[in-house]
Amino acid sequence: MNISIETKIKSLLRDAEAEALIITDPFNMRYLSGFSGGEGALFLAGEERILITDSRYTEAAGKESSFTVVEENRKHPRMQIFRECLEKTGAGRVGYEDQSLRCSEFDRMRESLPENLEWIPLKGLVDRCRRIKSEEEIELIAKAEAIGDAAFLEILKILQPGMTELEAAAELEYQMRKAGAGGFSFDTIMASGKNSSMPHAVPSEKKLEEGDFITMDFGCTWKGYCSDMTRTVVLGEADEKQREIYRVVLDAQEAALSVIRAGLTGAEVDKVARDLIKEAGYGDCFGHGLGHSVGLYIHEEPRLSPSGLDVLECGMLETVEPGIYVPGFGGVRIEDLVVVTETGCRNLTSSPKCLIEL
Amino acid sequence: MNISIETKIKSLLRDAEAEALIITDPFNMRYLSGFSGGEGALFLAGEERILITDSRYTEAAGKESSFTVVEENRKHPRMQIFRECLEKTGAGRVGYEDQSLRCSEFDRMRESLPENLEWIPLKGLVDRCRRIKSEEEIELIAKAEAIGDAAFLEILKILQPGMTELEAAAELEYQMRKAGAGGFSFDTIMASGKNSSMPHAVPSEKKLEEGDFITMDFGCTWKGYCSDMTRTVVLGEADEKQREIYRVVLDAQEAALSVIRAGLTGAEVDKVARDLIKEAGYGDCFGHGLGHSVGLYIHEEPRLSPSGLDVLECGMLETVEPGIYVPGFGGVRIEDLVVVTETGCRNLTSSPKCLIEL
Repeated sequence: MNISIETKIKSLLRDAEAEALIITDPFNMRYLSGFSGGEGALFLAGEERILITDSRYTEAAGKESSFTVVEENRKHPRMQIFRECLEKTGAGRVGYEDQSLRCSEFDRMRESLPENLEWIPLKGLVDRCRRIKSEEEIELIAKAEAIGDAAFLEILKILQPGMTELEAAAELEYQMRKAGAGGFSFDTIMASGKNSSMPHAVPSEKKLEEGDFITMDFGCTWKGYCSDMTRTVVLGEADEKQREIYRVVLDAQEAALSVIRAGLTGAEVDKVARDLIKEAGYGDCFGHGLGHSVGLYIHEEPRLSPSGLDVLECGMLETVEPGIYVPGFGGVRIEDLVVVTETGCRNLTSSPKCLIEL
Repeated sequence: MNISIETKIKSLLRDAEAEALIITDPFNMRYLSGFSGGEGALFLAGEERILITDSRYTEAAGKESSFTVVEENRKHPRMQIFRECLEKTGAGRVGYEDQSLRCSEFDRMRESLPENLEWIPLKGLVDRCRRIKSEEEIELIAKAEAIGDAAFLEILKILQPGMTELEAAAELEYQMRKAGAGGFSFDTIMASGKNSSMPHAVPSEKKLEEGDFITMDFGCTWKGYCSDMTRTVVLGEADEKQREIYRVVLDAQEAALSVIRAGLTGAEVDKVARDLIKEAGYGDCFGHGLGHSVGLYIHEEPRLSPSGLDVLECGMLETVEPGIYVPGFGGVRIEDLVVVTETGCRNLTSSPKCLIEL
């Protein structure tokens, strides 16, 4: 048993004022139990650490987790296992994950389990205990980000006019896999030319053309932990407007990186980049937040955004990714992933950020 | 506007006895609106077809969907947009997707929207209208499955002792990408030797060894639609036990394929394969259902399983994937994807199923 996790479980029970916790979010299940399969549930109460999953996963669960694995199946369904756990522990106040549990599943629990239970919505409590990463977690994310850096250097040698966005995305993912990626954090974005004005463009059969901005937003996983980075390059020689937009985004990103540190709110960091983009006349072209946290899941809290009131703490991870998107022309986004420290940040991304013209 | 979808929306409103539908499931959003971004919500009432999404997606949404795109942002948040839609349409009975909506999000809707609304859980109603695929949808899935077939033939030339499962999975995904895959239906399973006894094994750094069973369960997407297939091969020469297990699984699969047709329940088809595996003495080694439907999402209803009471209909897609898993030894799974027809099925998978010894 990982001692710090055991301490966190006890704190969760105490903070929620609950006698038992039912954990159903796959990432929280993994964080608390070590089980990576994603299917099942945890029942945590007193000293009981129960991991419920089906026959597809029981063998893997037994290897990955120190919890007691209980198989759910037709003869021994999940609700019956919950009833047995509740009886054994005598728990009456039960925390549930309202932010990830589906309405119908909660309805089923309320209908199948004793009426006198008191249900406590855990809100972001479990996610919150994942916010500050341990040294071990940071090293896993750093490794994932390094895989992305290695893949970026390779893709620069491969991109060429006539290749489709889909082919280029495939090459980039292949390079991440070859460098050791366990999976991908999200669907790779490979947006060229006018498509790059859509922050979340999906790779298409559009061919890369001379003069295109190419925005690559990509990430992979390493032992479950996600990386995330974005680089925009120009295929061929950049024109003046492209240079200007690129410079403004890079200035905004570097300004934000120079101020981010523990003690600031997400909004304060966001404002530094946003003001710079506004002053350059592109305020309407930066519609998304400056960044988000990253961990087992690609989008975690706290965020860097105009509404980000949470105060950053040492050991939190944040992406710093301003962008300018000009419909009909194209867009630029530059994103690094950093660890917040007392005095600033440790940048986990090492790929070059000068304007690369291929 | 796609006329058949418009008809389905009207039927949904009628069947749910609702005056408005709030659609939040990303796949249902895509199915009904054409918008593939996955972030946002639909408001459907009378002739109103509203697609709410944020600035990252508004441009793409406008291109993909015929619905009226409304941007949600800090100044015009989603709950306010809902309020405006409700006012404009006068809808009082509102259907919501209880099977995918999170408890906390539903709580927020109930707190932010007029108290006198009547909330109607849609249960599986929207998913249900996706069950029978149109000819166009079937062709997209057939194309995705053909990409998988092409990748399988390539990976057979690549697999060799000493390669890790992770490397082999990367090669398989790369082959799918090269053949045109838009993405992957799920994390590729590449399980070798003893690992193949875990139906949902995650590719590891274990090296492929002479004599290993190698189970490959993989799928890709084509214009959003998923493929799914599994093949198990032996690296080198199979031993007697491997041959026996393989033969039983293949017999079970072919028996199920020979009976599946419209009019049977999922349980009836499952039983054919399961009985055959039981009779061969491996009843305890087949813990999962025989199959599931596939579409925009990789696991759709109805399922082929002992508890599958739904009657199969023409135009439904089903995987047929029996398996035998022997802990400490290894396992075999063979999976095809078929379209249910009046008299049998159309098998979309063309990869060979004889025991391949590499």
